[in-house]
Amino acid sequence: MCELLAMSANVPTDVRFSFAALSQRGGATGAHTDGWGISFYEQKGCRSIHDPNPSAHSELARFIKSYPIKSLIVIAHVRKANRGRIALENTHPFSRELWGSAWSFAHNGQLKGIKKRPLTFYSPIGTTDSEHAFCWLLDRLRTQFPKRPSDPVLARAIAELFAELRRLGVFNALLSDGRALYASCSTKLCYVERRAPFGQASLIDEDMEVDFAQETTPDDRVVILASTPLTRNETWTPVEPQTTLLARNGNIVKTFR
Amino acid sequence: MCELLAMSANVPTDVRFSFAALSQRGGATGAHTDGWGISFYEQKGCRSIHDPNPSAHSELARFIKSYPIKSLIVIAHVRKANRGRIALENTHPFSRELWGSAWSFAHNGQLKGIKKRPLTFYSPIGTTDSEHAFCWLLDRLRTQFPKRPSDPVLARAIAELFAELRRLGVFNALLSDGRALYASCSTKLCYVERRAPFGQASLIDEDMEVDFAQETTPDDRVVILASTPLTRNETWTPVEPQTTLLARNGNIVKTFR
Repeated sequence: MCELLAMSANVPTDVRFSFAALSQRGGATGAHTDGWGISFYEQKGCRSIHDPNPSAHSELARFIKSYPIKSLIVIAHVRKANRGRIALENTHPFSRELWGSAWSFAHNGQLKGIKKRPLTFYSPIGTTDSEHAFCWLLDRLRTQFPKRPSDPVLARAIAELFAELRRLGVFNALLSDGRALYASCSTKLCYVERRAPFGQASLIDEDMEVDFAQETTPDDRVVILASTPLTRNETWTPVEPQTTLLARNGNIVKTFR
Repeated sequence: MCELLAMSANVPTDVRFSFAALSQRGGATGAHTDGWGISFYEQKGCRSIHDPNPSAHSELARFIKSYPIKSLIVIAHVRKANRGRIALENTHPFSRELWGSAWSFAHNGQLKGIKKRPLTFYSPIGTTDSEHAFCWLLDRLRTQFPKRPSDPVLARAIAELFAELRRLGVFNALLSDGRALYASCSTKLCYVERRAPFGQASLIDEDMEVDFAQETTPDDRVVILASTPLTRNETWTPVEPQTTLLARNGNIVKTFR
């Protein structure tokens, strides 16, 4: 299995605090030692960092923890390989372009028979179930909508495709095009919403505290999604299994059941 | 204008020495201050680092100069914006998937009328001429070859598409799918081949020397391509204008005139 982390914010926000916790789970407080990756959206652009080494011992991860990249949306993943060998090409988040946007995807779980589903436009580069599922999902969107549909129509279509994937096994997943963040919960996902009045938080996986009141303005809103809670003194809400969440500008704006 | 750097090697090779020179040209010894990027191929996988900040003053570039990533193929670029604002999405190398391979592309020059050419499969995420040219090129390959053709047929097709792009203006460019490196020279590109007996080299842009004999085995072969020479005591061969080079496993294997 793997662990997931995502952020949606209404102002460019630094995700280092949460990433510090996630990266500890790649070899220190967790056994997700088979690579890690993180995608940062900055307006239309997206930069992704991938490393097939354990994040807890990765110099690149240490650098990312020390280097503030401010984003509106972030998706990150630490990997415990089940399908697909340890290799850069099997490291999440995967990315593809659709309708002139950069899409990113990370997945925790296994999907029975996904690789038998034919693909039309997108092909996997690596050998994971997850990348095949991502290619299939974008293929379906592209076939249904030759041009980008309205936001509500797109969200509904993604929720339906997520539900179809959940029927194949475990599909805890994160998807973004830089405008919105889509999260599927099959079995395990939770979130915390941070807004004024901001308080303090301490990480569970590392001896690290932050006082968000020092780092924010009263209008800031941030939602953090993770496989399991990252902090000990905040209220993490479990996502209801078999649902899809839509987050935008630091808010959970819709739940699809 | 921009500056280009590429490497092809027959064993996984660290490109930090050459990247140190290129990155100085992003704000110290050159005025290419509008972002930089580098793509490293490791077998089928490709990791790209992008930064819209000047490479000479970028903490991320400093980290990359200190962190050995061993690759068979590297493409790097420092940008001086002419078309398309300074932004992450306009930072080369651009990447797309075709036939299950990760393709990367970086360009120096301007192409008249390229944006009027219609696109079918791939759409630009940013607003540069260069990304439009890359999308157009992959579109054409995909239309001509629904499946990946043989290496010689593919190389010939790429050389023809490069020649067509050169007719639109200045097209010094680098392209790779992780198997081979294709370089187009319109006006300015040169290369150095390193093989046994290995000697010493000193960078022009920075006070830095390396003794390749200490770093290599007698069978290693590396070719470095750059817009202008990066070292002072090696023989850099100018690429003939209006040609395409094909490099594989550290050798220039073919020139298309």
